[in-house]
Formats: sequence, C-alpha cells, structure tokens
Amino acid sequence: MGHRAAIVGAGHSRFGVLPEGPRALLRTALDGAAASVDHGLDRARIGRGYLATLGFGGWQLGNSSALLAEELGVPGLATLRVENACASGGFALQEAVRAVASGAVDLVAVAGLEKMTDVSAARRRYWLGVSGDTEWERQAGLTFAGVYGLIASEYLAAHPEAAEALAAVAVKNHANGALNPNAHFRKPITREQARASPRVADPLGLYDCCPVSDGAAALLIASPEHARSFTDTPVYIDGVGAASDYLALQERPDRRGFAASRRAAAVAFQEAGVAPTEVGLAEVHDCFTIAELLALEDLGLCGRGEAAKLTLSGATERSGACPVNPDGGLKSKGHPIGASGVSQAYEVFLQLRGAAGPRQVRSARSAVTHNVGGAGATAAVAVYTAG
Amino acid sequence: MGHRAAIVGAGHSRFGVLPEGPRALLRTALDGAAASVDHGLDRARIGRGYLATLGFGGWQLGNSSALLAEELGVPGLATLRVENACASGGFALQEAVRAVASGAVDLVAVAGLEKMTDVSAARRRYWLGVSGDTEWERQAGLTFAGVYGLIASEYLAAHPEAAEALAAVAVKNHANGALNPNAHFRKPITREQARASPRVADPLGLYDCCPVSDGAAALLIASPEHARSFTDTPVYIDGVGAASDYLALQERPDRRGFAASRRAAAVAFQEAGVAPTEVGLAEVHDCFTIAELLALEDLGLCGRGEAAKLTLSGATERSGACPVNPDGGLKSKGHPIGASGVSQAYEVFLQLRGAAGPRQVRSARSAVTHNVGGAGATAAVAVYTAG
Repeated sequence: MGHRAAIVGAGHSRFGVLPEGPRALLRTALDGAAASVDHGLDRARIGRGYLATLGFGGWQLGNSSALLAEELGVPGLATLRVENACASGGFALQEAVRAVASGAVDLVAVAGLEKMTDVSAARRRYWLGVSGDTEWERQAGLTFAGVYGLIASEYLAAHPEAAEALAAVAVKNHANGALNPNAHFRKPITREQARASPRVADPLGLYDCCPVSDGAAALLIASPEHARSFTDTPVYIDGVGAASDYLALQERPDRRGFAASRRAAAVAFQEAGVAPTEVGLAEVHDCFTIAELLALEDLGLCGRGEAAKLTLSGATERSGACPVNPDGGLKSKGHPIGASGVSQAYEVFLQLRGAAGPRQVRSARSAVTHNVGGAGATAAVAVYTAG
Repeated sequence: MGHRAAIVGAGHSRFGVLPEGPRALLRTALDGAAASVDHGLDRARIGRGYLATLGFGGWQLGNSSALLAEELGVPGLATLRVENACASGGFALQEAVRAVASGAVDLVAVAGLEKMTDVSAARRRYWLGVSGDTEWERQAGLTFAGVYGLIASEYLAAHPEAAEALAAVAVKNHANGALNPNAHFRKPITREQARASPRVADPLGLYDCCPVSDGAAALLIASPEHARSFTDTPVYIDGVGAASDYLALQERPDRRGFAASRRAAAVAFQEAGVAPTEVGLAEVHDCFTIAELLALEDLGLCGRGEAAKLTLSGATERSGACPVNPDGGLKSKGHPIGASGVSQAYEVFLQLRGAAGPRQVRSARSAVTHNVGGAGATAAVAVYTAG
C-alpha cells in the first residue's frame, strides 16, 4: 500500500536507575540518533520535533518540548509535547508520520523521555496513578498493578493454562534483556523463580511486573522520498493506527483484552496492507506479563484465548517464528513511560537492518509495535517493513 | 497557495470562574461545535481527536485525551493530548491540519480545556510556574507576571510612549470583551482606571494581566475537499507555522519581542502566500498587555518599535483597519490555558463568517491567530481565509 514514512536514524540511552538528569538522557538519545544516520546528518534539516513524556516528577511540567530544540542543538525548532501516558511515544511517532506524509516537513525528530527514580515512593504512586482513571480507580486506591491483577484474574479464570504462560513470558523477556546492553535488568531467570516470586497484586508476582526506570530514546523520521538521502537501508513505516477506550475498567464490556489495541491494530495493518500473521517481529507493551498475552491476541498474532498456547510453543522466543520483545520488553528492558513507545521503534530499526548484535532475530522483513496508555485507555500500533 | 484544511464547526463554553467541572466544560464546547455544523454532523465521521490541556490542578494528569472520545460520544476514537503550556491549543490545531493534509483522516476534532479555579492559590502558582523555566525562573521565585514585567520594563525603556499603549490595549480588549457573552470580564474600563490599577509586577498593573479562568473551546477540522459537505461557508486554514525558543529569558539575545513568534509567523504567512499587512483581523496572545504590543511587531502587522503608534492610532480597535482581539483577548475574555489557542480559532470562524453578532468586525476576509507558550518558549501561528 506504499510507505508512509521512514526511520533513518535511532538512538537510545541506558534504561534503569540512572544518575543522569532528564536533559542528559534526552541528549544521549538524540546524539545517538544523529550519529546513526549513515550518510551523515545536517541537523538544520530537521523541521519539527515531538517530545513524548509524562513529565514524571514534574521536572518541567509544561512547555518541556522547548528543551528538545535546545538538546538537539536546533534553536527555534518547532517542537511540541505529545502525552498519552505510557503510549506517549507511540502517539508521538504517529504525529511524526502524519507530519511528513502531509508534505509539510521532510525530516522530524521524535524523542521519548522519563526520569522516574528521583521522587519518593509516595509521589511516584501519585504520578503513575494519575494516568489511570482518577475518579473510580486512583481515588479508590487501585494501582496499575492492581488493575492488571484484576485483568489477569479474569483471564486466568477463563484460561487456567495461562498461568504457566505468564512465567514463560517473564523468562523469555529476561533472557532477551540479558543480551541488551541498554536494558534495566540483564539477569536471566527460571520459570521456578518467576512462579515463586512474591505476590504484588494476585495473581501477579514481582517477576510479572516491569520496573520503574529512567531513560530516553529518539528517532529521526523522514518522508519516503527523502529517506535514501540519509541511508541506503531505511526502515519504512507503512501503517499506523490508534484508538481509545474508557479510562475505567468498569465501563468496558470485555476485560480479557483491550478494544483500543484491537482497533488500532486493525487500522494499522489495513493501512500497511499486511496481515498480522505475516509480520516476523513484534514489540508489544508488556508492562505486566499478562499484557503480553493480551497483546498477542489483540494484535491478531493468534486467536482470542490462544496466547498461552502460542507462548508455550516457543514461537515468540527470539528463535521462534515471530519473536516478541527481543529487546527484553518493558518487563526486562525497563519502562520509562514516555520513552517506551519510541524504544520499541528503535528496536525495530535495529532488527530490520540486522544490526541488533547478540539479540538479532533471524530474517525478519516486517514488524509491528504496540504501545498502550494506562490499562488500555489509549493504544498506538505501527507496522514496518525493511527498506 | 491553496487551502490546507477547513474549519467546519466550532463551539465554546463560557470562560470564567465556573461551577462546571472539566468534563462538563469539554462537553459544552464539543456539543456546540457539533451543533454548529450547517449540514448536520454524523459524529462517526470524526477520525481523530486532539485534546489541548495543561491538565491544570491534576484532575486527570495523564491519558486525559481518552475522555475526549467519551465526551464526544465517539467510543474508541483515536485521541491524543498535545501540551505546550499556553500554546497547547494552537499546536493541537496544527496537528489537526497536518492529519487531514496527510490524507489519513477527513474530519478531526480539536478541543482545548482548562479547569483552573478549583485549586488553592499556592497550588495554582505551582501549576503556572512549571510552564515557565523551572531551573532559573520558577525556583528563583519568578512568576509569569514577573517575567512579563521584566519584558515590559525593557520595552518601555526603549519606547517610553508605549506606557500609554499598554493602557489602550487594556481599554480596547475590555470594551471588546463586554460584547462577548462568553467572556470572563464584561466590564468596559477607562484609560484612567487602567493607569491607576494596583501594581502586580512593575510596570504592569492589575488591568495589564489576564485573569485565571475555567473554560473550553472546540473545533471541527475537515480536509478542504470534504469541507463543503459540512457547510457552504467553511473557514480555510491556509498556512501554519510554529517555533520554539529557550525557556529562560536570560538565554535570549532579544527580550523586546519573541523570536519564536517571528519565526512561526514567517512560516505561516509564507505557507499561506499572504503578507502580514494583508490580513483583516488578528487574534493575538495578550496574556499581558505588553504581549499584545510584542505580537503586533512579531507578526509583522507593524515594524519593530511601532506597536504603540499602531495601537494609539486606533487601527487595532474593532472599527480599525486591522482589529486585534475583537473577542476581548486573553485579557478580558479569559485565559483557560489549553483552551485559549482553540478559542482564537473559534473567534476567527465566527468573524470570517459574519456571525460574531454585536462584536462583528467589518468585512475581514482573512485572519491570523497567534498563540504563545509560557513567555515565548513556544509559539504557533495560523493564517485563515473566508470560504
């Protein structure tokens, strides 16, 4: 169906509990993206910049996008902040795609950033909570682990065999993260460790939950016509889709999946002219292990209720037919909120160019990224092909 | 140079200290926009929604765009939040223009919203402060009134005659606001009152400052090809431009104007193929009276240093050659942060269709809107023509 836009550069900071402040993290990711452009980058060619961040902790709550121009070294650049909680990065990417597709600009910078670890635990709960439903969930004391625990309970009641698959997701993503030099956790675990981990929000244990991480990631997005002036091997974005849902779980008729993910995926795959089962690589939003199972079904990588079977078959491992989260996913790589959706596209950029080093998957020519805001209130999906 | 997009509907809540909560304000603006569509609106045609808000007070800090789908009555709609402080609305409008220009969607909803008056004065200072520079200004105790007071001092030192123009701006905008049923202040004032008002941040007095307001505004933006299926009299958006600047005043070589406004205006006017002096109506970001003077110069409506002369000539009054802020501006209409940029386009929609009632200006066929984030760290400009 044709290319909408192309990734021509990508950069990434470490993810984890880091000493660097938000500006330094942003600069690391942006400089990395600039340095990755094969034919060199004249930064003055960048026509617009998107910053994806929740502004966690309030280091600069409003107008923070202006810092993007400063750290990119392009004074005066048109910049704006896009925020959809944990899906901020995925939505910023879509705005960049539309900006180049509109013909208004030829090259756009997208950066995702979060500095989460320099606030107290109480303040951290607040900042995370305000991205869930305020009225019915946060003010009643429900945390995100609690929300996903409720979802997992309902899913396991229908599919008891999925309990083992949750452990398998944790083991797979920790194994992948161990090979990713930017990952927060680089420690393989066993299924026994996963199963025996302390409960956080039943049935979810510690190894079912992503960590609280600092980090940044950045992309350079060009129009398809200009892509090859930057690199001989762009990664094309062929379709994007997005959707929303009720913030509060109680409003939704179906809690064993995310309607927003399904709708976003349908739009993205249709725009790309690709079937979900054709993609050779998926980066999905595994903030909790249960979320990876939901994602496999919502994206159409398998049928409803079949995610446990697919996972336990090994198909989603790095050596499988459709590797899922070869970078370790949010679970092991870490989840600096605004950065996560951008980081997923970074991984696709490396993998489809065969540049992912020890964690490289075999021969993927297409990929999908899936980024969720909150517990499914917003979702952004993008479909890619190698250039 | 051709139309980029078209406004086919617009709605507005009252601005002021209001009893309604954020959801009710949003719904009022969205329902108003839907009802204003001449040929009727099938809301299912809306393909994307942008919410402009600082999320002031934290009523729903993250993922708030999901509420837009709910209040619009389009479940599952792709929605995202755009935030650039006081320029959030102007930037959201630009994203909507790019989305329809890209061909991805035919009809987009843009809403701006702020609920500012249900928090304490201390918390309000924090929420406003975090949109200015955090490191050098807020943490040193400088408020926005202080920042604009510094700018006004520097401007008046170079142009002492502008002191009288500041009072003239206040008088003009209060007179205009008195005719606007949605305005926060509907009380005409005299130059003597303006001059004698208590000092807030020298040389700025009370009547130089916009109020703290609740409110919402909404637009329906269609592709030019589809505009006439909604109305026989669309208002076209022919050019948009945006830019950023250093957050902190101390980093900028020139503080007698905003480089971001100048750059954004140059891009927007060039894209539209219109000269600044050709437009018959301007909505500019007059959060303080001095800001209106800077805007006249930065947009090119007059030369550098000539804003006082232009203002004192009466040219910017409702009956003048180029009326400025006929709705009362931020100064008198009010400034609910995320809503202000959207409200400017609402006014242009009414005025260019001859539907502004008692405050209607004479025979304007083109217009410009100018929305500033913080004290000039971001700026968005758009140029319009009547259909």
